[in-house]
Amino acid sequence: MTLPAANHHAASSSEVLQLLREICLPLAVERVALPNAGGRVLCEPICAPEDQPAFDRSSVDGFALRRDDAAARFRVVDEIRAGDWKPRQLQPGEAVRIATGGALPSDGLQVVMREDAEREGEFLSVLRRDGERNIRFRGEDARMGQVLIEPGIRLQPGALGLLASVGCAQPLVTRLPRVLHLATGNEIVPPEEQPQRGQIRDSNSTLVRAFLDQWRIQPTQLRVAEDEAAARAALQGSAHEANLILISGGASVGERDFTRHLLEQFGFTIHVSKTTARPGKPLIVAQHGNTIAFGLPGNPLAHFVCLNLYVRAALEALAGRPGESVFQTGVLMAALPADGNARETFWPAHWRLHDGVATLTPLRWSSSGDLTSLASANGLIRVTAGAQRLERSSWVEFVSTEMTL
Amino acid sequence: MTLPAANHHAASSSEVLQLLREICLPLAVERVALPNAGGRVLCEPICAPEDQPAFDRSSVDGFALRRDDAAARFRVVDEIRAGDWKPRQLQPGEAVRIATGGALPSDGLQVVMREDAEREGEFLSVLRRDGERNIRFRGEDARMGQVLIEPGIRLQPGALGLLASVGCAQPLVTRLPRVLHLATGNEIVPPEEQPQRGQIRDSNSTLVRAFLDQWRIQPTQLRVAEDEAAARAALQGSAHEANLILISGGASVGERDFTRHLLEQFGFTIHVSKTTARPGKPLIVAQHGNTIAFGLPGNPLAHFVCLNLYVRAALEALAGRPGESVFQTGVLMAALPADGNARETFWPAHWRLHDGVATLTPLRWSSSGDLTSLASANGLIRVTAGAQRLERSSWVEFVSTEMTL
Repeated sequence: MTLPAANHHAASSSEVLQLLREICLPLAVERVALPNAGGRVLCEPICAPEDQPAFDRSSVDGFALRRDDAAARFRVVDEIRAGDWKPRQLQPGEAVRIATGGALPSDGLQVVMREDAEREGEFLSVLRRDGERNIRFRGEDARMGQVLIEPGIRLQPGALGLLASVGCAQPLVTRLPRVLHLATGNEIVPPEEQPQRGQIRDSNSTLVRAFLDQWRIQPTQLRVAEDEAAARAALQGSAHEANLILISGGASVGERDFTRHLLEQFGFTIHVSKTTARPGKPLIVAQHGNTIAFGLPGNPLAHFVCLNLYVRAALEALAGRPGESVFQTGVLMAALPADGNARETFWPAHWRLHDGVATLTPLRWSSSGDLTSLASANGLIRVTAGAQRLERSSWVEFVSTEMTL
Repeated sequence: MTLPAANHHAASSSEVLQLLREICLPLAVERVALPNAGGRVLCEPICAPEDQPAFDRSSVDGFALRRDDAAARFRVVDEIRAGDWKPRQLQPGEAVRIATGGALPSDGLQVVMREDAEREGEFLSVLRRDGERNIRFRGEDARMGQVLIEPGIRLQPGALGLLASVGCAQPLVTRLPRVLHLATGNEIVPPEEQPQRGQIRDSNSTLVRAFLDQWRIQPTQLRVAEDEAAARAALQGSAHEANLILISGGASVGERDFTRHLLEQFGFTIHVSKTTARPGKPLIVAQHGNTIAFGLPGNPLAHFVCLNLYVRAALEALAGRPGESVFQTGVLMAALPADGNARETFWPAHWRLHDGVATLTPLRWSSSGDLTSLASANGLIRVTAGAQRLERSSWVEFVSTEMTL
């Protein structure tokens, strides 16, 4: 997609998302140990290295005996614990004590549960046969070579357990992006400092760090005043090594045009300089080689929206999953005022499953600078451009900001 | 709730969950820095330390002038950047250049957007007034002292940003539990080793670590054979310091009764020694003072179920959120065979929102030792005891195993 010149065209959110899918190329792959593979995108098919299970295993704690042996009294000739390997042919009238997970000593056996038998010294009386063989047979879950996990999934705890069980201790996954975050602004002070009059606390650095932490990404973070020399020094040397640069603030169309000017100095092409959506109108998307840069409008709610909409799409594409749609459908629990002339709006909301349906409660939101909704927002309702008032019980599109990795 | 003696009574999943809510007491609280507070449960109300915003701020980039000044031409007498504090009374015919976020110099002003005015040197022609004052007024989002966040929520990125914005750089949160995990079994080898015949790879250590990682908990993990002396040595010194002990394997009712015997030696009271649910029948829940111990049945799918059902409930209660229900409602996308005589079953499934409705696709599952469903399972369908075949489109209860912190 080629967007019209960034100077004149305000891009819709769909256009920005489409652009990101095109310009964010999957990062290189690497092998990482299982404890570090959580949340990563798998880049190889995982096949069973042997039959699953690899040998006939008892599924209960009890006594193995011949299936064709209808006797009621047996002599216990051996004991097999889990981990043992004791092949032997049982004779009629013989049984072996076997623990859950123990390897059956031969074919043609069944296992009687311990509670269905009575042991007296080396002898055993079988009280009951439950009709089950109580064996997990070699290969019954999967055959050697069978694909167990297809590439492209994000590795969750269960899949990691499955990888461990088949000995894939170093799965091939996409690399994490190197992210540089620059919080700019003459008005910002660190959260632990008391702002002077006219100043505000920098909350975007915390928001960006916590957002990226969901992806296990630890950004390099810097805080600079809107001072070109300082910002240039901060970017120097790392601007082109980073896969993703996020610049907070400095994106409005002031005389200074700080972020845009800065990125152009480093050779970036500006693809987007504003959007038709709110919050997040003065958004910059720029590119230099394989490095993608975002200029994020300074107010934290716009950050929240742009991170969960655009930066997330960029991260999915960098991880090799460009097709992931961020939009879901849900039902409104309260009417939402909408000005028929307004721009596309992402309205902060709290969503949850209620009786199997995604329900959305719009949160109080007075302006794009109003952060109070961030206390409980876990979703963003998409109000399309020019929409009329949305009634309670209307179906709407939304973005869940609850990330699962 | 007092359960009948653990020896004889098999507890239902509801009974186990109820017991855990009662015996798992909230951990102590601590103050942690914002970068470490993600996923923690907030233990104090957060109030606005000053009005939000703390001063009248321009919401656009433009020129401030008197509301009552209907002139079209102004002299630009000053420039206010974000962060500046330059109080002054504007005279009729005067304007100040003001950046987005800049502090208004006095009351009674409005801001004309830059694109609605034309500047020539020190003079300004206002082309258009959009009827908006373009000011975020002091206190319009929240008043000083107003509660912005109630205690009891899990801190997500948005809430962390809000905390930063009000200077709460060290929120009071519940401590993370100290967790000790012991993988037992003579048959297990580390995932990177080739198992000999009769042996299997230890996948539970990976699963437990990845599960706890979702809660930002790093367990102490040990792998021991079913050898009492080794296991006692592993527990010695840490059994009573841990808040939570997880023991994988050794929970079946073998002659050895390994986990139970071990816990009793350390003075634990056994509350539950088996459940009526599957997988996860031979589950142990034990207590010693404020230390809670689980004996988890060795097979990984039972681990997956017990972690996401019981251990999760214990972690919520330890974090001070005992009331969190784990059950949701969803609709089946395929029929599920059910044996009318069977025990309560937690069936691995993949769930997703489809057109606003939680839909559940049951996964192939041949036995409780079958791990292949862990590749894509993100939910567990609850099939009640004695249920008949569940038809496609039936509504069922399920547990989402996708954790969001």
